[in-house]
Amino acid sequence: MAEEIAVENISVCLRRYIKDQQPVESDMEIVKSEVTLRLSEGTQDVLVQNLYLSPDPYMRNRMREIFTSYLPPFEPGKPIAGFGVAKVILSDHPDFQIGDIVTGIVSWEKYSVIKGGLGLRNVSHIDVPLSFHIGILGLPGLTAYAGFFEVCKPKKGEQVFVSAASGAVGQLVGQLAKLAGCRVVGSAGTDEKVELLMTRLGYDDGFNYKKEANLSEALKRYFPEGIDIYFENVGGKMLEAVLDNLKVHARIAVCGMISQNLSEHGEGIRNLSQLIVKRAKMQGFLMTDYLHLQEEFTKFMLSHLKEKKIIFIEDVVDGIENAPHAFIRLLQGKNIGKQIVHL
Amino acid sequence: MAEEIAVENISVCLRRYIKDQQPVESDMEIVKSEVTLRLSEGTQDVLVQNLYLSPDPYMRNRMREIFTSYLPPFEPGKPIAGFGVAKVILSDHPDFQIGDIVTGIVSWEKYSVIKGGLGLRNVSHIDVPLSFHIGILGLPGLTAYAGFFEVCKPKKGEQVFVSAASGAVGQLVGQLAKLAGCRVVGSAGTDEKVELLMTRLGYDDGFNYKKEANLSEALKRYFPEGIDIYFENVGGKMLEAVLDNLKVHARIAVCGMISQNLSEHGEGIRNLSQLIVKRAKMQGFLMTDYLHLQEEFTKFMLSHLKEKKIIFIEDVVDGIENAPHAFIRLLQGKNIGKQIVHL
Repeated sequence: MAEEIAVENISVCLRRYIKDQQPVESDMEIVKSEVTLRLSEGTQDVLVQNLYLSPDPYMRNRMREIFTSYLPPFEPGKPIAGFGVAKVILSDHPDFQIGDIVTGIVSWEKYSVIKGGLGLRNVSHIDVPLSFHIGILGLPGLTAYAGFFEVCKPKKGEQVFVSAASGAVGQLVGQLAKLAGCRVVGSAGTDEKVELLMTRLGYDDGFNYKKEANLSEALKRYFPEGIDIYFENVGGKMLEAVLDNLKVHARIAVCGMISQNLSEHGEGIRNLSQLIVKRAKMQGFLMTDYLHLQEEFTKFMLSHLKEKKIIFIEDVVDGIENAPHAFIRLLQGKNIGKQIVHL
Repeated sequence: MAEEIAVENISVCLRRYIKDQQPVESDMEIVKSEVTLRLSEGTQDVLVQNLYLSPDPYMRNRMREIFTSYLPPFEPGKPIAGFGVAKVILSDHPDFQIGDIVTGIVSWEKYSVIKGGLGLRNVSHIDVPLSFHIGILGLPGLTAYAGFFEVCKPKKGEQVFVSAASGAVGQLVGQLAKLAGCRVVGSAGTDEKVELLMTRLGYDDGFNYKKEANLSEALKRYFPEGIDIYFENVGGKMLEAVLDNLKVHARIAVCGMISQNLSEHGEGIRNLSQLIVKRAKMQGFLMTDYLHLQEEFTKFMLSHLKEKKIIFIEDVVDGIENAPHAFIRLLQGKNIGKQIVHL
């Protein structure tokens, strides 16, 4: 570590906390600085160059001052952070060597120091696109896998509904449902996405929820006998419509409520008594409760990827300067597939 | 069956369907008629004299024309029906003999013909008050037992909250929670009921929800570290308050939503995203899914009754003419313990 190189770092910092409104690009700012690439010995720190960043909906809650979610708020003036894939530049940690490809929580900047290598994991499978480690092999992948198999416990022939069906998690749930022998219908917010469901992701059917005047009627059309499994990504009116169309002993895996989780209290769900009528289960989950499945999950996804029995659609934005834009378009549902920032 | 006796029958009939408002006594009417006590041979019919009737909250939904619940609507001009304990007067069914004490769904009248003996069950334990067969040994008992043990899966030391805590089901859940080694707090709608929770039912604590300006703050007081198990009997604002106070991996058994299930769509629950944050499960259930536990459940309750480790509080109204009043006061929360009509 004798040679110390000065480089330009570019960071995406939180400008100010957001309130109950949707964040906008100007809530973040691009900050340039000069940093010296060095590490102090005895710290076990790791210095990485970030290759891919993952904008995820849960990050929105970290832009608020109130600690209502499962992670603390970001700090104004400091880089925001999320899952990323990076290359080790310098390492004081025995588990990580220069040149290693790693994944974990990184700051949104070109170069990051990971204190004590906390949460970093070596990527052993470099025969797939590296960005897959924050996609099908990362948070969205394990979320879909654990949520569908462990929470929903699908049975062959069951009727599955997925909202945000072409998104990072939804596109995988749809494919897992088909692999499990279920019938699966998805909803999305543009016709282009709906087409994708059927042409590339193997969904049996799909619809554009923005074109439906009555979501409950729409679901009745697609599920005349009701829904066994609902993979919930959106909340609000869609959840109400699903509750009105459940089959007996239905299961709802609550993965996200992107229409809801910004304000302290979202839109009201008025028909929860359907849970009694249909003896249905509604379960919230986070993939962090299923890290013990990591090995089985990685094996499953890799083998299905190799046999081309599963695909993963990404929407890549180039350049860290465009990361705020990538994050906002994700929240606006403008991405097609998993939103990725490529540095 | 040679001798045919004419007797006066008194029935509680539905006068008209109710809309979205609470039913009132005048929605029912007392109808007197003369009936001849006889049965045709080859029908397997059973003629019973009703001894105890059970007004239950779920019956409210059967007074509406719309079939939104798990049982069809009552018919105007005909007797309403519910669980009862009765004595066999005449029987064309091999399983039932004159003088047998039976339980099952009976019409609200002095004498009922049970077509083919459908759903009737002989009561073998006549060493407990007969009314217990529509209480601690009947629907409320099995509901509490299955809901608490099977849906909530309690662990020793867990924090349990029960709403409508002195009601037919709630009073049992509280006692089961103590038997399971949990700490249990209940809410009720009068000070008298709250006192009962602590003095007779073994609750660790309790509060009158009508005296709390902020239910969420009240729950924070009683559960500073959060709630592991919520036995849901009421819905609405109380459910919202509970969602704000859940511990990680909490379970909510949705038994009833008496504040909700009258209108098509009840009050909106706005913080369901807490299910994700706390990775919590919310499960609706009906005791009809747990009939396979009947034997184990009966054994459990009888042995605990005999050892005085469990009690059951009843609120008995005399005379079938007072049955409409008994039903309405139940819906108004005026009963203390299980509402019973004694004929």
